[in-house]
Amino acid sequence: MTTLPRVLSAVGSGAFTAASEDHLARQLAAHGDLLGTVDEFDSASSRAMLAEAEVLVTGWRTPRVDAAVLDAAPRLKAILHVAGSVKENLDDAVWERGIEVSSAVDANAVPVAEFTLAAIIFANKRVLRIARDYRERRELIDQAGLGVIGGYRRRVGIVGASRIGRRVVALLQPFDLEVVLFDPTLSADEVAELGARAVTLEELCATSDVVSVHAPSLPSTRGLISAEMIDRMPAGSALINTSRGDVIDQDALTARVQRDDLYAILDVTVPWALPADHPLYAHPNVLLTPHIAGSVGTEVNRMIDQQVAELDRIARGEAFAHPVLFESLVTAA
Amino acid sequence: MTTLPRVLSAVGSGAFTAASEDHLARQLAAHGDLLGTVDEFDSASSRAMLAEAEVLVTGWRTPRVDAAVLDAAPRLKAILHVAGSVKENLDDAVWERGIEVSSAVDANAVPVAEFTLAAIIFANKRVLRIARDYRERRELIDQAGLGVIGGYRRRVGIVGASRIGRRVVALLQPFDLEVVLFDPTLSADEVAELGARAVTLEELCATSDVVSVHAPSLPSTRGLISAEMIDRMPAGSALINTSRGDVIDQDALTARVQRDDLYAILDVTVPWALPADHPLYAHPNVLLTPHIAGSVGTEVNRMIDQQVAELDRIARGEAFAHPVLFESLVTAA
Repeated sequence: MTTLPRVLSAVGSGAFTAASEDHLARQLAAHGDLLGTVDEFDSASSRAMLAEAEVLVTGWRTPRVDAAVLDAAPRLKAILHVAGSVKENLDDAVWERGIEVSSAVDANAVPVAEFTLAAIIFANKRVLRIARDYRERRELIDQAGLGVIGGYRRRVGIVGASRIGRRVVALLQPFDLEVVLFDPTLSADEVAELGARAVTLEELCATSDVVSVHAPSLPSTRGLISAEMIDRMPAGSALINTSRGDVIDQDALTARVQRDDLYAILDVTVPWALPADHPLYAHPNVLLTPHIAGSVGTEVNRMIDQQVAELDRIARGEAFAHPVLFESLVTAA
Repeated sequence: MTTLPRVLSAVGSGAFTAASEDHLARQLAAHGDLLGTVDEFDSASSRAMLAEAEVLVTGWRTPRVDAAVLDAAPRLKAILHVAGSVKENLDDAVWERGIEVSSAVDANAVPVAEFTLAAIIFANKRVLRIARDYRERRELIDQAGLGVIGGYRRRVGIVGASRIGRRVVALLQPFDLEVVLFDPTLSADEVAELGARAVTLEELCATSDVVSVHAPSLPSTRGLISAEMIDRMPAGSALINTSRGDVIDQDALTARVQRDDLYAILDVTVPWALPADHPLYAHPNVLLTPHIAGSVGTEVNRMIDQQVAELDRIARGEAFAHPVLFESLVTAA
């Protein structure tokens, strides 16, 4: 019989729905020796639990885990991050001390890829614009006048072979669509193996009916979808962004949308909530969502379940299935 | 060297976009001996071409092919219908005379299934309602307050194992969703083979997070999704209809939507365009589209390409890949 690892949860109250908070607490108690749940690392009771903890569970609301927190947790050997990116929450000191880290970035990629797939299908058919026009005109449309829309033999351009980008390419395989991919770190053969055709960013933007951005937000990707790239996009094409707002030249995109010949599905903007008078809110060519493409509602339970499976691996002395290596942080979202 | 069959196209001008009309004409000329294109069967020139035609190409705007038309076409051996249902266009006399019929109903099922998949993904995440709320409030939402939404371990109920229903079940396989299916003509084992679990309609409506209707419009399916079934649906669930409006009790659906605890994605209604003052047009829980889930734009080319492949089979003396058998018309949409 294995001894269950001693676990401290610091996901932070209010980060998840009540149902997911319950799910996490129950799963941790079932698969580990749960010491407790804390919102901070400073109180005497938090310190007492930190002193015992072998595994720390973190989330996007967890206070930053820095050297001082680690000093208070001498037995800590692993951190399970129930969220995507660890950058905001975990200090380099975590890796320097040899603590193993796993994150739910793979589980979090699933809903983003699924949201993107739905966005691509609807963008190709121009569903949301047609629905809005129908709501205003309240009469059937002349289908012969719809122009070049639809999901047959059209081109989808994926920017970035990130976890999410790869998943989108995989989900698109059953469709009659040509998938092109831009990723400067992959060879043409590697891109072909993923199920896409390698193109330059210029060709991708100039020839795709739908462009979906899955590049990480890094100094090198800021403004990657520049005014020039946006100008290259064909009339009537669509741009989907579920990554980070600053990867796109938002002003150029807004101007192009306002010319009424580009469509946009944006789950991320700069700033996170646009100013109340921003034209992207009301334009009929735009679907603007408040950063929900990632894990929301029950999708948080997928992250929890994946990280609880990591807890089982710790108990069995196995390596993580979803490790976060220090070297990988440079290119991570 | 094979002799190409003599083909008359009567798809009807204005049924397709100009691009698809061109595509059809070019493909028929390349794969057959194209006599010409007509909008009617009464003029002397139409009669002259009918007299020669071995293959007739029809579409949803083609005048009905009845005994009189067939009398004028003594060499006719096959009809290629570049649309889904043949009921409105082809008289029983076609089958009585032994003319072979193929339709593009399989090709037309593809875009409907893809539209439905996107609708299911967006319904599970409540994307369109959240987007509408965001547009009104113009501030980020509290994700912890979103409640039970999302695409993880939720239940999708498919009503009807039609071509489209089966395709939707197949497309849902890569997702972390439980798919239940109601179809009174299939055994539980047959449903399991499709990738779903057989349930009664009552259980399906009472327990599914999203219900999608893919039943044909027949006397036996009229009002299938009755007021009682609609009342059974859980608060916050969604109903998708891309089949025919009369399969649903539309008044009961409207009343439930107006109570603000049901979502609806409707591509079909009774009548086809709702009266201008109908509450479904503007309700924030509704996506209403003007019968576009089926083939629109380039998707029409999928139907054309499939029927041109049937023309090749005629030239090679092979049987149709997508035959329409007289017996099947009783249960067809």
